[in-house]
Amino acid sequence: MRAVQRFELEEHYRYYWRIEWFWRFSCARLSKVEEGKNFAKDNNVDLRTIELDVASQASADAAIQKIIAENKRLDVVIHNAGHMVFGPAEAFTPEQLSELYDVNVLSTQRVNRAALPQLRKQRRGLVVWVSSSSSAGGTPPYLAPYFAAKAGMDALAVVYARELTRWGIETTIIVPGAFTGGTNHFAHAGSPADKARAAEYEAGPYKGFADDVLKGFASIVPADADVAAVADAILKVVDTPFGKRPFRVHIDPTQDGAEVVNAVSDRVRAELLRRIGLADVLTPRALTSLLQNAA
Amino acid sequence: MRAVQRFELEEHYRYYWRIEWFWRFSCARLSKVEEGKNFAKDNNVDLRTIELDVASQASADAAIQKIIAENKRLDVVIHNAGHMVFGPAEAFTPEQLSELYDVNVLSTQRVNRAALPQLRKQRRGLVVWVSSSSSAGGTPPYLAPYFAAKAGMDALAVVYARELTRWGIETTIIVPGAFTGGTNHFAHAGSPADKARAAEYEAGPYKGFADDVLKGFASIVPADADVAAVADAILKVVDTPFGKRPFRVHIDPTQDGAEVVNAVSDRVRAELLRRIGLADVLTPRALTSLLQNAA
Repeated sequence: MRAVQRFELEEHYRYYWRIEWFWRFSCARLSKVEEGKNFAKDNNVDLRTIELDVASQASADAAIQKIIAENKRLDVVIHNAGHMVFGPAEAFTPEQLSELYDVNVLSTQRVNRAALPQLRKQRRGLVVWVSSSSSAGGTPPYLAPYFAAKAGMDALAVVYARELTRWGIETTIIVPGAFTGGTNHFAHAGSPADKARAAEYEAGPYKGFADDVLKGFASIVPADADVAAVADAILKVVDTPFGKRPFRVHIDPTQDGAEVVNAVSDRVRAELLRRIGLADVLTPRALTSLLQNAA
Repeated sequence: MRAVQRFELEEHYRYYWRIEWFWRFSCARLSKVEEGKNFAKDNNVDLRTIELDVASQASADAAIQKIIAENKRLDVVIHNAGHMVFGPAEAFTPEQLSELYDVNVLSTQRVNRAALPQLRKQRRGLVVWVSSSSSAGGTPPYLAPYFAAKAGMDALAVVYARELTRWGIETTIIVPGAFTGGTNHFAHAGSPADKARAAEYEAGPYKGFADDVLKGFASIVPADADVAAVADAILKVVDTPFGKRPFRVHIDPTQDGAEVVNAVSDRVRAELLRRIGLADVLTPRALTSLLQNAA
């Protein structure tokens, strides 16, 4: 009994530092990497950190290769990098929209292209995407470039999921609602480069609108909304046995409707795959069935 | 009676060539512009063409300025540019995803930034977005970078709609399903730059999958699916009086579920705006109410 508990605990930490690796990767800041190292030392846990700049394919490749070289395998990839902007859509330059797509979406493509060959080789793995409730649920104004990028990320996750199941790779999409505190997501939000255009909105019928939107958020995000619930949800998914993990997990204290919409969209998408005879890609193929097919 | 009919016909053509303008813009190919000119000449209609490269802000600015200089106003903007790619998601480079976001999404931002100042000045206008059923409905595999871009475009359209209503600008999102013929959309689809990675999918458990997906499309797109129905739907929207135009119009012969999902998502999004006290941005403000507010 004690041995089992001990094993479970070790398993937990084994996953925990793997999650933390990727969590730190996503931050792509040396200070965060140092913070992680200090946390591990102070708390005496086996948490290993590594620097990975999601804006650079070379950095993603090098970090993933180092992990594989040291551990001979890779269990979980978590796409968590994200950056937000706030202001009238028209006042953002196309270049700003492009940069935001890079941080929120191309980042996942770089890490996938670095990590998936190993997961495919293993014929086993888990990819977790930290999406956003905005891609299906409520979309308050003045967040257009960010919502566009997150909707793109969610769409990418949905299709990737089906292209990885036959390799024995499972996908879970984590859907956090608005958490206005507990992270730097809102505090570090970018602003429109075209100040003159933004000023036209403020001088026109959208006077005071930015404040109205922020007050709106304040009125719907519960005071006890704790962003740590997102990390807990990820841990729970990782601890769930292969083949039993949920396709989506919503953590949305504001209940903006994403849970309702995704239930419908995931359903009609599964229905379409069945209609066109590709239902098998809905569930990750276990190694045993792969061996049976090969026999 | 005859006068009314004559007027309606003229109105029809007035809108028709305005739509065609933007339709041609979207194509951004000189040959298409020439084709339009020839069509106008051969059919004796007042259809005026102009070259506009949606990949260039300077080109978008110049074309829109020329139209405004010649007509003193701008009635309708139609975002129709689109390009598709086909293959395993992992085999596309981040640069390819970026290019696809540029053609499908940044294109609309460039045209918006060129055209919206005029529509806002008029306190009247219509923006039509040609989205994709994939952003809410069925998403067959091997189309990930395209679906990601179109989901981004749809999200941008949804938020822009709310940031334009107080300026008296109306939005309609056109949602075509899969039309595998009648356009060059499928015929001209791009392919993954990383051929070696694509070959791994073909040599592995996804052997023959590209053909399976295409056969799947063939099995669900009705033989009589006519893409001209999309143009007809746009004409109908333009001909509808201001304030009465639908927020979305679905033209989806395959019935991939987008109509069901969007009904729910548009509903929860409207609900959120009501919850945070911003319900007024759901409907375009008419000029009369603007004058009343100013009085």
